[in-house]
Amino acid sequence: MTGDERPRYAYLGPAGTFTEAALRQVVGPDEAAYLPQVDVVSAIEAVRHGEAEFAVVAIENSVEGGVTAVLDTLATGDPLVIQREMLVPVSFTLAARPGTTMADVARISAHPHAWAQCRRWLRANLPGVVHVPATSNTAPAALLAGTDEKLAFDAALIPPAALEHYALEALATDVADSSRAVTRFVVVGTPGEVPPPTGADKTTLVVHLPSNQAGALMEMLEQLSTRGVNLSRIESRPIGDALGRYSFSMDVEGHIAEERVAEAFMGLHRVCPHVRFMGSYPRVDEPHDGVRPGTLDADFHAARAWVTALREGQAT
Amino acid sequence: MTGDERPRYAYLGPAGTFTEAALRQVVGPDEAAYLPQVDVVSAIEAVRHGEAEFAVVAIENSVEGGVTAVLDTLATGDPLVIQREMLVPVSFTLAARPGTTMADVARISAHPHAWAQCRRWLRANLPGVVHVPATSNTAPAALLAGTDEKLAFDAALIPPAALEHYALEALATDVADSSRAVTRFVVVGTPGEVPPPTGADKTTLVVHLPSNQAGALMEMLEQLSTRGVNLSRIESRPIGDALGRYSFSMDVEGHIAEERVAEAFMGLHRVCPHVRFMGSYPRVDEPHDGVRPGTLDADFHAARAWVTALREGQAT
Amino acid sequence: MTGDERPRYAYLGPAGTFTEAALRQVVGPDEAAYLPQVDVVSAIEAVRHGEAEFAVVAIENSVEGGVTAVLDTLATGDPLVIQREMLVPVSFTLAARPGTTMADVARISAHPHAWAQCRRWLRANLPGVVHVPATSNTAPAALLAGTDEKLAFDAALIPPAALEHYALEALATDVADSSRAVTRFVVVGTPGEVPPPTGADKTTLVVHLPSNQAGALMEMLEQLSTRGVNLSRIESRPIGDALGRYSFSMDVEGHIAEERVAEAFMGLHRVCPHVRFMGSYPRVDEPHDGVRPGTLDADFHAARAWVTALREGQAT
Amino acid sequence: MTGDERPRYAYLGPAGTFTEAALRQVVGPDEAAYLPQVDVVSAIEAVRHGEAEFAVVAIENSVEGGVTAVLDTLATGDPLVIQREMLVPVSFTLAARPGTTMADVARISAHPHAWAQCRRWLRANLPGVVHVPATSNTAPAALLAGTDEKLAFDAALIPPAALEHYALEALATDVADSSRAVTRFVVVGTPGEVPPPTGADKTTLVVHLPSNQAGALMEMLEQLSTRGVNLSRIESRPIGDALGRYSFSMDVEGHIAEERVAEAFMGLHRVCPHVRFMGSYPRVDEPHDGVRPGTLDADFHAARAWVTALREGQAT
Repeated sequence: MTGDERPRYAYLGPAGTFTEAALRQVVGPDEAAYLPQVDVVSAIEAVRHGEAEFAVVAIENSVEGGVTAVLDTLATGDPLVIQREMLVPVSFTLAARPGTTMADVARISAHPHAWAQCRRWLRANLPGVVHVPATSNTAPAALLAGTDEKLAFDAALIPPAALEHYALEALATDVADSSRAVTRFVVVGTPGEVPPPTGADKTTLVVHLPSNQAGALMEMLEQLSTRGVNLSRIESRPIGDALGRYSFSMDVEGHIAEERVAEAFMGLHRVCPHVRFMGSYPRVDEPHDGVRPGTLDADFHAARAWVTALREGQAT
Repeated sequence: MTGDERPRYAYLGPAGTFTEAALRQVVGPDEAAYLPQVDVVSAIEAVRHGEAEFAVVAIENSVEGGVTAVLDTLATGDPLVIQREMLVPVSFTLAARPGTTMADVARISAHPHAWAQCRRWLRANLPGVVHVPATSNTAPAALLAGTDEKLAFDAALIPPAALEHYALEALATDVADSSRAVTRFVVVGTPGEVPPPTGADKTTLVVHLPSNQAGALMEMLEQLSTRGVNLSRIESRPIGDALGRYSFSMDVEGHIAEERVAEAFMGLHRVCPHVRFMGSYPRVDEPHDGVRPGTLDADFHAARAWVTALREGQAT
Repeated sequence: MTGDERPRYAYLGPAGTFTEAALRQVVGPDEAAYLPQVDVVSAIEAVRHGEAEFAVVAIENSVEGGVTAVLDTLATGDPLVIQREMLVPVSFTLAARPGTTMADVARISAHPHAWAQCRRWLRANLPGVVHVPATSNTAPAALLAGTDEKLAFDAALIPPAALEHYALEALATDVADSSRAVTRFVVVGTPGEVPPPTGADKTTLVVHLPSNQAGALMEMLEQLSTRGVNLSRIESRPIGDALGRYSFSMDVEGHIAEERVAEAFMGLHRVCPHVRFMGSYPRVDEPHDGVRPGTLDADFHAARAWVTALREGQAT
Repeated sequence: MTGDERPRYAYLGPAGTFTEAALRQVVGPDEAAYLPQVDVVSAIEAVRHGEAEFAVVAIENSVEGGVTAVLDTLATGDPLVIQREMLVPVSFTLAARPGTTMADVARISAHPHAWAQCRRWLRANLPGVVHVPATSNTAPAALLAGTDEKLAFDAALIPPAALEHYALEALATDVADSSRAVTRFVVVGTPGEVPPPTGADKTTLVVHLPSNQAGALMEMLEQLSTRGVNLSRIESRPIGDALGRYSFSMDVEGHIAEERVAEAFMGLHRVCPHVRFMGSYPRVDEPHDGVRPGTLDADFHAARAWVTALREGQAT
């Protein structure tokens, strides 16, 4: 950081990706150094190797970058923690060089994920158009903008934010079939201070189970449910050991500073062979079910005071 | 207690009952004042009214005194706690006036419970003998010993300990059909210091549930099982309110001073409308399943230390 | 049954007991032979020995006869099933010889249970009155009516129905402290046709568990809750084997002819070392929680039809 | 299928992909028509549109093609079922034009997933080598083989099977860091006959829950665990409705033709708003925990026979 005191953010580049759009929600390019990476694993490893303070990666429902690779890379190796999450709408723009019209478009370059997200719109508006698969969501924009020569395609499906980076024009915007699709991104950093609880937080963790029996998964989840801790994401991942066991990557509602989450983590620590805490941070979506009666911090404090009194002989 | 500094024990009398045998396991008649009562409710109320320091009552499997009445009386009213438990073998002696022989016995006085316990022995050894129901286990002994006149019966089934109180002789001992039957008694007192944990303790409690649905009972029991707390007795009792709800009287393995029991009580306090702690005390029978791995005090302490570190930003 | 074709009912006698009041709810003395017994075990065994077709015994909350003895006697030996249940209010009458007034009453004979049930009324209305313990609820009535001589007591607490059997008068009625207390009785008979489902039934059963661990009880109860079967009574009883295991006597809401109960019984049969079905019969109290959505017979039939289609390759 | 009676398989092409390697495990190119597709969604839709009888797609742990897209595409739309699963080792070959040596390799083209899988090997064997990101695992092979001109890279990481399709030579084989990594593929077709049970099968399904509360997930999983049905994969996916609810994509051990799986499906059908059966098929990995005692077909049959007898009045 010689001369440049700004924090460094590694992310899946280049400029114009959905990931960059997520990063812009966190910090502007003036206040931080943006370090584009070729893939999500590189972005994460850049933090582990001290080349960046933070990484921005997709953690759910991504249309670029590998969620599975993100989860697996975070689950092992030096501990990293999530500090913040951001939602980015999955929206595509049909872009072309200035002067191109819809009638000119016979072939479209698009990353297969992008193509899949816009299939219905394309069928309705450009029947018979040909798909030219692209390496990434921004690659066809770079190609179109990089030369004046004739290319193998006439237009491209690109993230809205990519338009301004390349001298392209929008033939159509919001062409994704689902107007509600979003990708969830997170900011990952090295452990340090946990962001303070806001009352609407989320905690990410990975646990291993002692066996694959249904009972083992139930026993683990009971450690959450008996404290009223709701789950908002769960994914099993093969551990890869000789026993064929699974790990579970999960998001739970609440913050490690809250009593119900803390006691649930204590329980997991007691019954699971391995638990990795991966951060408590403000949630950006609305919780759909509130905190269950009897599981607020005040309920835990009252319960503890009561048990302390019992232990001192004050049965009531 | 003017002049007599000995502790007072109320119990189901008179002398010679099984309850008195239980009391003798606790304290001899020289070191304590024995206060016989006509029924178990009176024994318990004597403590509440300050007429005795302790009551000795049957709490399970009794052949005298009402277990149901004991549980219900302890579950409501001023709080009392169990300090100790004792087991008394259910053993009967066939007793008669000196000079009586087995051949003389045509009619036997016995409390119906006693008669039921000795049915097979009687059929085998005194076929055709007639049952003259008695008020209590000791009443027929008192009648036989109280007069020389001819009575409506020739012998009586009485607790072994009753023999010495009345000038009777044993025609046969150990005549109960099951040699393993025992009654469990407890010493009840006012709340104060909880007996220290011994490593093999039991805790008694009463809880109310928010509803009668199977799920409500499961949710309550999960508060025990997630902490590895085993149950050794459970009995539902109608609460008697307009909702037709039930309370549950339970014994669990472990001591309130142990972490797993304390955290389970915290959980019950949070999810149940009412929880009454009724004492932690040494158990007299052997626990059949040890403490589950991950639920020793050391496991709780390690888990808490780990969560404390997480909260301070030290993810590992 | 020579000459008398009426069904025979064994019950805890003599005339005037609460049990007889329960029996009268079932069948009048003209249509059945009433066979009074000295204790509940004798009443049950009378059916097993062919001396009666039916027994009437208290199964919960009794103020006479031993509920524990009833449960234990039904749980082992030749199978018997419950055919019907009846509730009898726990109500007491203060009775005396004609001519006696409240002012004459210095000593009252009463079974200890009866005395306990009326304690508050007695303290308020007859302060200082002395308790003369009685063998049973009806014994003091028989004594008062059997002679004109002076007895050791002036009045008696007896079941309301006992008044008409003995030439006594009521000094006060409804003297029990709780106006809501009831005892639950059942009619027990040999297995045969199960009473048809009425839509508001109860099923009684006894199960043994493979171990005493909390998990084993939970696993058993899950077999009920996953099918939406609610529990209305549970009592653990020591099995008495070398392992110190417990059996559980339970009432569940519903009828064995209903799908959710049948499937739950199948589940119990698979996971428990021993299950005894003890009858499905109309319940006399109101169910407080209805049948859970998704657990009606129609839901089971639809689910089975769906799975049958799946097995035939018709995925939908 | 004019003239060509061979079944048509749509898969993520082109020739040489891991997906093609999976397809070759199922059927050789002589017995089937291989229909390469640009992405996994296209492969699945080809079956729905009648352009192919089957699709081969990655369903877990893929290094090419989107598992998330596969799961989401199968979970909605016309029903499709899995007929078979295959495992393909994640193994990479470092390939180059004939004559190239390791010393010549300064830049390597590789799909970012491939690069991530071989990172350690590259660091050890080719320190400082530069990554040139590729569109797919086979794209750099096609480029190398398609021209003699100098390219922006000297070698490529490709699937072993791609070597033979292009006139390339292996500089090194088995260069993936983990020798145990595998991708799971499945054959998807239209519903019809379910493959017969083999004794070691797997069933895939998708369920929706009524709410996001931890209790709802537990209740769903209890429908599996009470029948002894183990889970081998679970992934939550946002449903995308206004309630923010989740669906769960799961693999369970066992076959719909087996009693424990069938009864579990019945239970899920009763408690979940939506259940989609996605096939029962032989599993290729070893089950790690056997069928739990009490959950074999014979146990279900015995339990059903017992309940049938109970319903007919034959209590035992």
